[in-house]
Amino acid sequence: MPEPLETVVVPAREARTIEVKKGQTLEVVDLEGQQVGDLAAWMADDPDEYLSPAHTVSSLAKLVPEVGEAILSNHRTPLMRITRDDVGRHDLIVPCCDPERYSIDYDAPDHGSCLASIEDAIAGHPLGLEINGENCWNVFMNNVVVDGRIVTDAPPHPAGSTITLEILEDLVVVLSACPQDISAVNAFNPTPMALRVFE
Amino acid sequence: MPEPLETVVVPAREARTIEVKKGQTLEVVDLEGQQVGDLAAWMADDPDEYLSPAHTVSSLAKLVPEVGEAILSNHRTPLMRITRDDVGRHDLIVPCCDPERYSIDYDAPDHGSCLASIEDAIAGHPLGLEINGENCWNVFMNNVVVDGRIVTDAPPHPAGSTITLEILEDLVVVLSACPQDISAVNAFNPTPMALRVFE
Repeated sequence: MPEPLETVVVPAREARTIEVKKGQTLEVVDLEGQQVGDLAAWMADDPDEYLSPAHTVSSLAKLVPEVGEAILSNHRTPLMRITRDDVGRHDLIVPCCDPERYSIDYDAPDHGSCLASIEDAIAGHPLGLEINGENCWNVFMNNVVVDGRIVTDAPPHPAGSTITLEILEDLVVVLSACPQDISAVNAFNPTPMALRVFE
Repeated sequence: MPEPLETVVVPAREARTIEVKKGQTLEVVDLEGQQVGDLAAWMADDPDEYLSPAHTVSSLAKLVPEVGEAILSNHRTPLMRITRDDVGRHDLIVPCCDPERYSIDYDAPDHGSCLASIEDAIAGHPLGLEINGENCWNVFMNNVVVDGRIVTDAPPHPAGSTITLEILEDLVVVLSACPQDISAVNAFNPTPMALRVFE
């Protein structure tokens, strides 16, 4: 098995950035299992073009992308293609968790959030990156639509579960190890993840 | 029946803005039937807070909002509440159509789009409004999720069909009468709509 060029551990409840180049392979790894990662990305030469879950859903005409399919930008540019997926459950229709999600919906105003973690991770980035919560891909999130209602179940996937992405453009990627511990999103136990890049 | 304070006709394949105040009522009217309108909105005192379909889906935990429910901003502020709905089908998960939707997915690079119409309608607005396609609410769009796939059927609703919205914040609203004539979105026949404001 080849050695990764770079490994970035994303501590539980935090976010980290990584730069990837066209042609490289990026793995998103759940180190301990049952954890969701919120992934955002920007073109390395144009931060106004960014990963867009909604555009991906539209062009795929499906809720969950599968192996062989690409995640698109807001200009419908394929940014990364799924080449292997141990989990097969992902969410492209809800935003990352944010301070108001906790204060309004969970009465937990001081709770950490993916949005705050990502804002911390990209603060001061030379590209002047900005994050809108609706542009996070919720990797491994076990949302199912039943009769038009969204049901969030604890993800059953075990430690080491990985999604492998062929990188199709030079990108800045950020991953937040979701801090949600009030609902089943991360089986009530936020844990760390990792990003691995291969040539 | 009370007279509207203001009526704005949105010509077929075009978009128009309107300003509404907290406490007013906004009607979105399909004048000829089977037409979809893409609606975006911004806080009148803060254009960085805008209508967000994804945040609405998240907090409602459902795909289609119903009478009595509110459409939220990216900070989960209720912006408008549905008080009457003749149609009951709306889409909150796909972006408005855009130039790349037509060029890539329909091989129609010169086709008009809701995104271009909205950009024209808000150009030069004193608030410096900007539109991201993922932040359009596709009013009356007849998308159904079947086994995880999104199926777009022609909307069956007749001329005069209306959704009535109690306005909960001072807003700038834009509505695009969708120009899609290649798929069933508007029953292959884009037609005009109207916005009506009542005190």
